[in-house]
Amino acid sequence: MTVPNKTLNLSFAALKQAYRSGELSPQQLVEQIIERAAGFTDHNIWITAPALDWIQPYIDGLASKNPDSSPLWGIPFVIKDNIDLAGVPTTAGCPQFAYTPGQHAFVVQQLVDAGAIPVGKANLDQFATGLNGTRSPFGACHNSFDFDYVSGGSSSGSAVSVALGLASFSLGTDTAGSGRVPACFNNLIGLKPSIGLLSGSGLVYACRSLDCISIFATNSDDANEVLEVAAQYDEADGFSRHNPYLNLKRHYGLAASNLSLGVIPPSQLQFFGDEGYASAYADTLSELQAAGFTLTEIDFEPFLEAARLLYEGPWVTERYMATQPLIDTNPDAIFPVVRAIVEQGKYPAATDLFKAQYRLRELKRTCDAILASVDALLTPTAGRHFTIAEMLAEPIKANSQLGYYTNFMNLLDMASVAVPTRLFSAANGKTMPFGITLVGPCMSDRWLLSIANRLQGIFELPQGATGQPQPARAQNPVTSQKRIDVLVCGAHLTGLPLNWQLTERGATLKTVTTTAAVYRMYALAGGPLLRPGLIRDESNGAAIDVEIWSMPADQFGTFVAAIPGPLGIGKVQIADGSMVTGFICEPSGQIGAEDITHHGSWKAWLASR
Amino acid sequence: MTVPNKTLNLSFAALKQAYRSGELSPQQLVEQIIERAAGFTDHNIWITAPALDWIQPYIDGLASKNPDSSPLWGIPFVIKDNIDLAGVPTTAGCPQFAYTPGQHAFVVQQLVDAGAIPVGKANLDQFATGLNGTRSPFGACHNSFDFDYVSGGSSSGSAVSVALGLASFSLGTDTAGSGRVPACFNNLIGLKPSIGLLSGSGLVYACRSLDCISIFATNSDDANEVLEVAAQYDEADGFSRHNPYLNLKRHYGLAASNLSLGVIPPSQLQFFGDEGYASAYADTLSELQAAGFTLTEIDFEPFLEAARLLYEGPWVTERYMATQPLIDTNPDAIFPVVRAIVEQGKYPAATDLFKAQYRLRELKRTCDAILASVDALLTPTAGRHFTIAEMLAEPIKANSQLGYYTNFMNLLDMASVAVPTRLFSAANGKTMPFGITLVGPCMSDRWLLSIANRLQGIFELPQGATGQPQPARAQNPVTSQKRIDVLVCGAHLTGLPLNWQLTERGATLKTVTTTAAVYRMYALAGGPLLRPGLIRDESNGAAIDVEIWSMPADQFGTFVAAIPGPLGIGKVQIADGSMVTGFICEPSGQIGAEDITHHGSWKAWLASR
Repeated sequence: MTVPNKTLNLSFAALKQAYRSGELSPQQLVEQIIERAAGFTDHNIWITAPALDWIQPYIDGLASKNPDSSPLWGIPFVIKDNIDLAGVPTTAGCPQFAYTPGQHAFVVQQLVDAGAIPVGKANLDQFATGLNGTRSPFGACHNSFDFDYVSGGSSSGSAVSVALGLASFSLGTDTAGSGRVPACFNNLIGLKPSIGLLSGSGLVYACRSLDCISIFATNSDDANEVLEVAAQYDEADGFSRHNPYLNLKRHYGLAASNLSLGVIPPSQLQFFGDEGYASAYADTLSELQAAGFTLTEIDFEPFLEAARLLYEGPWVTERYMATQPLIDTNPDAIFPVVRAIVEQGKYPAATDLFKAQYRLRELKRTCDAILASVDALLTPTAGRHFTIAEMLAEPIKANSQLGYYTNFMNLLDMASVAVPTRLFSAANGKTMPFGITLVGPCMSDRWLLSIANRLQGIFELPQGATGQPQPARAQNPVTSQKRIDVLVCGAHLTGLPLNWQLTERGATLKTVTTTAAVYRMYALAGGPLLRPGLIRDESNGAAIDVEIWSMPADQFGTFVAAIPGPLGIGKVQIADGSMVTGFICEPSGQIGAEDITHHGSWKAWLASR
Repeated sequence: MTVPNKTLNLSFAALKQAYRSGELSPQQLVEQIIERAAGFTDHNIWITAPALDWIQPYIDGLASKNPDSSPLWGIPFVIKDNIDLAGVPTTAGCPQFAYTPGQHAFVVQQLVDAGAIPVGKANLDQFATGLNGTRSPFGACHNSFDFDYVSGGSSSGSAVSVALGLASFSLGTDTAGSGRVPACFNNLIGLKPSIGLLSGSGLVYACRSLDCISIFATNSDDANEVLEVAAQYDEADGFSRHNPYLNLKRHYGLAASNLSLGVIPPSQLQFFGDEGYASAYADTLSELQAAGFTLTEIDFEPFLEAARLLYEGPWVTERYMATQPLIDTNPDAIFPVVRAIVEQGKYPAATDLFKAQYRLRELKRTCDAILASVDALLTPTAGRHFTIAEMLAEPIKANSQLGYYTNFMNLLDMASVAVPTRLFSAANGKTMPFGITLVGPCMSDRWLLSIANRLQGIFELPQGATGQPQPARAQNPVTSQKRIDVLVCGAHLTGLPLNWQLTERGATLKTVTTTAAVYRMYALAGGPLLRPGLIRDESNGAAIDVEIWSMPADQFGTFVAAIPGPLGIGKVQIADGSMVTGFICEPSGQIGAEDITHHGSWKAWLASR
């Protein structure tokens, strides 16, 4: 192993600044990456290494455009070698499987169209079957912090290339944890998007129903930018799904630090003898509590049971299907430990799969309810970091331990983001990385990234293994917006005739308070249903009794639409000075209305009649 | 076959009236049902026939309660014999399979708790495998209109008992069409609820992942009442789902008659030689058009492909699983034609099921988009009504033809309601029934029932085969509420800075119009974003240019919550006099604001600045 040359700062912000100022060109950058990559050949990062002969056309394609003309102009990225790049072989880690695609994978096409430059096709656990990075005929991929340690996999080269400063971001894939475990082991953000958010067209499937193309980056801002470009609906992929409004780019920002995070009870944690990781996890939780997060223990057992279904159940059949016909005609072409796993997929019957799917459906219901009770679930990303020697000694058992916290995710159709939280002095005498994973329901990707952004501000780690400091990150506050606070003051109050409009929509009473002392309340003309109108009057107002209800956001629209004029929904100031979404009244409502402000509450006025 | 005795009017409304007035008691009713049922023994309706020895406790249980104390007090119902009634054998149509449950099925328990009286356990196609009603060792069930014709199945006795006036409603089950085909053949409403809306606890599964307990009734009001009682969440059933707000009872009523209904192009229709049905269908469409419905042809092929997956694909494996261990240990116990089908379920591999599920996922995406383009899809419920002799001559082929319009429904996770539309003079010289099925997305049950209610008012058919007229039905108008019209007048207008708040939520421009001439428009104080406020002024108002956008209802809540005061969302009157949900302004908004009414539009004022 040679000493690497000059470390580059490849954060999007740094590169864009360098391009804008003219101090760097894409040509220069790629040449520096090629030169730097030469210092890491022993890491076995590549299946197709960076070389100008095939990269040059992408550089040339940028020449006529302005650096600010497209969101990823001149940003170098690496592609896991089970995703198609036109004209370059796709091997999936198996030379005998290789083919040279005529067109880019759908996601690669989006990235190239946005100006990103592919700089390499990365080594992987063959057919994406593994979480460790040693299962490749192209050689075990080595960790970016310690050459003796596993890189994590199956997206091994994708993670190590970014961690070593050879690309700004990379595409991995994630079926069982392949987009998260290598992030943990190399101090990276690893976004495992919701299934279907990134198209699978041009991907060599591992488990067709569970596979996700994933994103490695050094910070959440950059992952957010890549997601924005990559997450396009693909009519040609039956698993592609539309990205809903609350998961669009503008809902990325900085989450609050007083969130409620679900955590695993100590009895269900596993570190498999890795004291360093156990300590790093404990330290992570302590820092989060100090920063204001509330940690709530949840029952992890239903997640673990779902996780066990992945390799002990019939989903391995999808791996078998993905390697056909090669595994039937030339099984020796497949890496021995991969073959031993995948061959098992030949045998399950449809009865086995139905049984497992029935059970999974039950588990998902339980796990979804747990997720709904917190702002996100937080787990260690991996329980132990193995050396390559340890991994090769027990290739099945050790790999299985790597999936303890990750295997359930796609079976339960959840989104997740691996976030680095510690660089610690490990038993090997080196500084080693540790990280956690944030888990949320399907299509909570941007919310999880926003929490990751908050965590990066707390833990302040450098970029990957480069020592480069992080750029400034997004500071716009965001909330999950799953629920909306609704202030009511009249017939919707507890016990009154329209209260069902709240309860039938799943709203729950949150606070009983008063308005700020700047309102007058009127009993509106008409009926038979009696209704009050709140009118803001800063010079002659009073505090009026109100209730604040918390309603699922997706139910609020029909509530608003059902309100007859002159009432409506706007903003009402409450006693603590804040503005809350709630009932307002048009000026015309005052016509024929009775001022009942002196009663102080709608119920008091009703009682007085 | 003996001549039936006095026909009873068993509609809920008629029974409740009779109970309230004291002219009838539950005891008298049940005794009349038992007497009347004796006239139909040749129909092979029952596996456990009505008899006081087991019904009496249910009658006695009502004595201490008022007829209005519970929604189904004294309402007689029949239970398909694959659903548990405590203390009575459940056979699923197979004596060797029979067991006597200690407790009611979850749904039966809800109904009994609500005062309903079980009066029989009904014959069925064995293991609910069939759509015709002849596949039972208890004898072929005969049609209620013509003894020579099939009843339809598999819920054969459930449908015939209601059609002949032996119960007010009944429970069937529906995997491939068993809750709809018999409704069509016996002039009944057949509600196939969304999967999971009615618990499957206590049901002998046919295809566990697809089964639904279904409801037969003589009119949509009664079906709606039964749904209200039966659709309770069941923690013990992994497939149970919560009923969302827009599918609650209060969203049942009378749908408009100017809806857009998707219909099948002539080239994709199949009547299998049944000219009577072809004519009845054509007449149905003509009447619907005359009533104001818009009929839009859709492509039925993806639905048909999904339908073919049900019996030609690996889902038959679930039927095999449901009959284990009997089919393995004593296959001769199973009805020959049923056994021939179910045995095939032993062989599919997990690979077959994955492949079929991949394809189904693609088809579902296409079919969902088709449903989203119309208010509902309308198909014939069945293409041909067979005689029992015809069915027995070609038991597989004829049954397959019965599923042409029904088999796709549960695979695609859709809701549907079979609705009678014609009584016509058939080739057999008798008056025979025909009907259509309304199809909507999952959890559109109440919307479909509301359209069914409208159709019943158009076609005015009697109850089942009893000749009894229908009672008055619900007249409260309802809409699907999937989208909400939103009136905008300022920064949200096309081309202005906040228009993205509409487009990113999937809203589309619907109408460009003006307000009624009763508004003044103000340019509000503050900025930098300029905003107008509409203030209603009936004595001195003007017409102001506005746009009306159509927004998905579930997206509207976050839109409203993001609006800063003094603006809000209320009701605005437009040029045609109607009130539309849109922007209003608090009285305090007038402070410091500039009256710009004379410009007539926000854009005109902006241009004038």
